[in-house]
Amino acid sequence: MRNLRLIIAYDGTDYHGWQHQPGLRTVEGRLVEVLSPITQTRVGLTVAGRTDAGVHAHGQTANFRTESPIDLTRLRRAVNSRLEPTILVRSIEEVPERFNARFDALGKHYRYAVWADPDKPPPHLARHLLHWHRPVDLQAMADAASQLVGRRDFKSFETTSSQPRKSTVCDIQRLEVSRDGEHLWIDVEGDRFLYNMVRNIAGTLLEVGRGRFAAGDIPHMLQARDRSATGPTAPAIGLTMMKVFYDRWPAMQPSP
Amino acid sequence: MRNLRLIIAYDGTDYHGWQHQPGLRTVEGRLVEVLSPITQTRVGLTVAGRTDAGVHAHGQTANFRTESPIDLTRLRRAVNSRLEPTILVRSIEEVPERFNARFDALGKHYRYAVWADPDKPPPHLARHLLHWHRPVDLQAMADAASQLVGRRDFKSFETTSSQPRKSTVCDIQRLEVSRDGEHLWIDVEGDRFLYNMVRNIAGTLLEVGRGRFAAGDIPHMLQARDRSATGPTAPAIGLTMMKVFYDRWPAMQPSP
Repeated sequence: MRNLRLIIAYDGTDYHGWQHQPGLRTVEGRLVEVLSPITQTRVGLTVAGRTDAGVHAHGQTANFRTESPIDLTRLRRAVNSRLEPTILVRSIEEVPERFNARFDALGKHYRYAVWADPDKPPPHLARHLLHWHRPVDLQAMADAASQLVGRRDFKSFETTSSQPRKSTVCDIQRLEVSRDGEHLWIDVEGDRFLYNMVRNIAGTLLEVGRGRFAAGDIPHMLQARDRSATGPTAPAIGLTMMKVFYDRWPAMQPSP
Repeated sequence: MRNLRLIIAYDGTDYHGWQHQPGLRTVEGRLVEVLSPITQTRVGLTVAGRTDAGVHAHGQTANFRTESPIDLTRLRRAVNSRLEPTILVRSIEEVPERFNARFDALGKHYRYAVWADPDKPPPHLARHLLHWHRPVDLQAMADAASQLVGRRDFKSFETTSSQPRKSTVCDIQRLEVSRDGEHLWIDVEGDRFLYNMVRNIAGTLLEVGRGRFAAGDIPHMLQARDRSATGPTAPAIGLTMMKVFYDRWPAMQPSP
């Protein structure tokens, strides 16, 4: 039995998210439909982090087990030629039998991309960023972001779901706001993420940027442990799962 | 009466081309639908060059006449906020009464974009380039391209339409093939273009790139004045109308 790890990119615009749902077009559903006949396996995918409807990925990671002896370059080409242009399997490699894409993930990098300008973004970029036509105080956003770095209770940034989590403590190693012309990016790296956490952080930082909140409000927001203390959930369109870290994390630190 | 010139970008994927057609979603149709109520005008657009279904634009240019006194920044913002993300009016300016976007165009720049690699392009680029998984001999393509520059009869590169043109002579001032990694671009500037001419040139150059034709075949292709002497029509997905030149052309030459 081989254990295969896939790194996958997708444009999430036209999908009902990652997770298979009968009768709906999902990324997992399409991958299973295409992988199963080629590998003659009832493919069951384990994924690093499910993404919601409309969210994109550059380096989503999943694994599945198969007895197929197929050459992995051939498998990748066959899968990609059968998949639509909006999903790309970037790599397939054999990994140790015990590798689990979800539980072995040490951290993840998400990027929230914004077009910060009164005018709309160019059409060829429009599917992958939020159009924000309000003011942007970059320094205030950076100040607010820096106060979210570290090991903290992020309950105020969790959209409450039907299944409450035991712990709402996450370790955010990197939260950076950068700008180049109309482009504005919010990059977040952390060991784990609560439901909608990156979109709630992005929505809150954008509200700081336009002056509805101050950077100094962040400590109170964290202390409140209450979703209503923070900003709105930023739309899915701007969010991309960039990378999953397995070997070491945070990515920016050299190995000891 | 004011004469207004619009510069328009669009992602042509979801449109049945530029030209208004009842019951079909076209770029012109959408612009007329949005411009007319705002300007209280029965808007009639004159366009520099109609684009076919699936073809994109970065700098399509059109003009229309209106008696509306509306501020042009306000008009542009109002139009863009009503249009979907796949169409962007980049600028609106008042031009002399006699300006005609079609007949005053001195030249146009088209770009044909290719992803030249056995693997598919990243999903966020996939709507704007042709995936070409065959070999690419860049030098042979450049040699072939150079033989198409100048004032020549391009009848062999015209898809025959029901309305034959009087003249099939065009002046191509620039035809360049460039590559950066998997990206390959064919840039064409000319004073006029026959039906499907850029796509037929691109299709022919790609066939040169993979060795089906030689650069030395180009003179014979031109002499033949026969569409069947040249390569296939490259798909619309890779084609973008980049710019229309009015004041002077070719763009690359300094003013005298």
